[in-house]
Amino acid sequence: MNFSTQIQQVDILDAAKRINPFINRTPVLTSQTINRLFQADIFLKCENFQKVGAFKARGATNAVLLTDKVQLSLGVATHSSGNHAQALSWAASLVNSKAFIVMPSNSSKIKVAAVKDYGGMITFCEPTLESRETTLAEILKKTGASEIHPYNNEQIIAGQATAALELIDEVHDLDVILAPVGGGGLLSGTALSVHYFLPDGKVIAAEPEMANDAWLSFTNRKLIPSMNPGTIADGLRTSLGSITFPIILRFVDGIVTVSEESIVKAMRFIWERLKIIVEPSSAVPFAALMDGKVDIAGKRVGIIVSGGNVDLDHLPWIKNG
Amino acid sequence: MNFSTQIQQVDILDAAKRINPFINRTPVLTSQTINRLFQADIFLKCENFQKVGAFKARGATNAVLLTDKVQLSLGVATHSSGNHAQALSWAASLVNSKAFIVMPSNSSKIKVAAVKDYGGMITFCEPTLESRETTLAEILKKTGASEIHPYNNEQIIAGQATAALELIDEVHDLDVILAPVGGGGLLSGTALSVHYFLPDGKVIAAEPEMANDAWLSFTNRKLIPSMNPGTIADGLRTSLGSITFPIILRFVDGIVTVSEESIVKAMRFIWERLKIIVEPSSAVPFAALMDGKVDIAGKRVGIIVSGGNVDLDHLPWIKNG
Repeated sequence: MNFSTQIQQVDILDAAKRINPFINRTPVLTSQTINRLFQADIFLKCENFQKVGAFKARGATNAVLLTDKVQLSLGVATHSSGNHAQALSWAASLVNSKAFIVMPSNSSKIKVAAVKDYGGMITFCEPTLESRETTLAEILKKTGASEIHPYNNEQIIAGQATAALELIDEVHDLDVILAPVGGGGLLSGTALSVHYFLPDGKVIAAEPEMANDAWLSFTNRKLIPSMNPGTIADGLRTSLGSITFPIILRFVDGIVTVSEESIVKAMRFIWERLKIIVEPSSAVPFAALMDGKVDIAGKRVGIIVSGGNVDLDHLPWIKNG
Repeated sequence: MNFSTQIQQVDILDAAKRINPFINRTPVLTSQTINRLFQADIFLKCENFQKVGAFKARGATNAVLLTDKVQLSLGVATHSSGNHAQALSWAASLVNSKAFIVMPSNSSKIKVAAVKDYGGMITFCEPTLESRETTLAEILKKTGASEIHPYNNEQIIAGQATAALELIDEVHDLDVILAPVGGGGLLSGTALSVHYFLPDGKVIAAEPEMANDAWLSFTNRKLIPSMNPGTIADGLRTSLGSITFPIILRFVDGIVTVSEESIVKAMRFIWERLKIIVEPSSAVPFAALMDGKVDIAGKRVGIIVSGGNVDLDHLPWIKNG
């Protein structure tokens, strides 16, 4: 299989043009302290400053803008308890469409409130994958809405690819780009952008040990789903999909895993030193660097900082918090 | 008195040139959400991204670079439990000088560690102003070091003025600039930069109700020190000085005060919506906007976000935190 035939260079460039009027061109941050620490030049592409606080706004906007008007009049739909739910609700509102969001009944109040804030219409279900899928199927049947999957969707992947595209455009001669991996939408998009626009560059993914399905799948070269992973990096609990996995297998150079302790330490380090709010998932590549799992000495290293949506009432380093 | 004769336009421009190689030109952030909320164009000058995490790096660097070599060989000194202690330690290290820092014995471990990290040499004293001053006097006598006051010092003020200078340089046609006020170093510097470089602009200061000495002094047109204010905005507990007060009286257009509750609410709002870490002092001008204390509708408004040094183990909105 050659997946470069499915999402072409032009698809990513078109996605960038399409979503540009709506999304933020997020800043690239650098820090001399961090460069000294790692003996490397580190460039943080800050998608925590993206609309809805995460890169997910890119893919959702691209997918919604590629949905035809008749379909949009019936709405879009997904099941998600995380950033994609907010992103799709927000993107649908841009084109005066409706977003039907299936969320598990145990979703945090903050996430429910955020989806409602962006105008999403929520249907609660049991907190199992089966219930999520059957509930979504009912919604699709009843409303005629179009399903927009959080990551196993070429339009979503092309949208997520634009974060790395902007980074490559802004920072010359990167040696490697790091991204976290959950379902693989961001990672496969990043890998495609590096393939097309930074052909000498490498892509390394970082994943929580407790949700190491991408590492397992990559190592065994077959899709191995995760089993209810309990990692604090809630954006990375999903398993790779049938579309994201082959792209990752083909275009990603390596996957490393990190402990929960390292994730929390890295997250806190970023908050304290860089003064930016990042969610646990975003700290995963940084944790890999702090643990010395990727050899970056003397290199120019891009990191996709995926998002900044954190429940500020419950921080992992504060007991009772 | 005409204080424009003491700190001239050229002093601020020279300070900017002098400190530029060492400090960060901090970014100016904007947010459509916030602009919509306030029906105004808001520009946040993010000194939380400054060296040592606060604007204090500007003044300290300017003062240290203006100290002659013989004096520098003996070191610089101050009493401070806050950002100035870190800033002076850091600035002294730039020129291979020593910083003698007098800190109250009840200073937080984090602040003590930060000062040590930057190479400052700490002498602890009783947590009273008298003990701080007598201990510092002893240090000065013993070492021959030069005292660099946190705010009541023209070189410090000219340094702090460069934050507003950069903001005015980057964002055209600002109507008003807001800054927090503690000892008045940042505020008097900001007011001078507006006077010289944005002559049609206004300057409004924001202060905690619980540390309202600047408001009282401004309103009564005489220096009224604060009495052990307990505000959470720990950077703003100091009283105006003999040099900062006359500048403020002459060049500041208004001072408003905000409650502790508003400060915490504004701080949390900034963290949640802008994904940046700001310290309570930095949230004070924003709190004034949220409380409707400054009429900004339709205006172009700059805010100096003073710093981002927060004890992440103890957040004001988390009980037991």
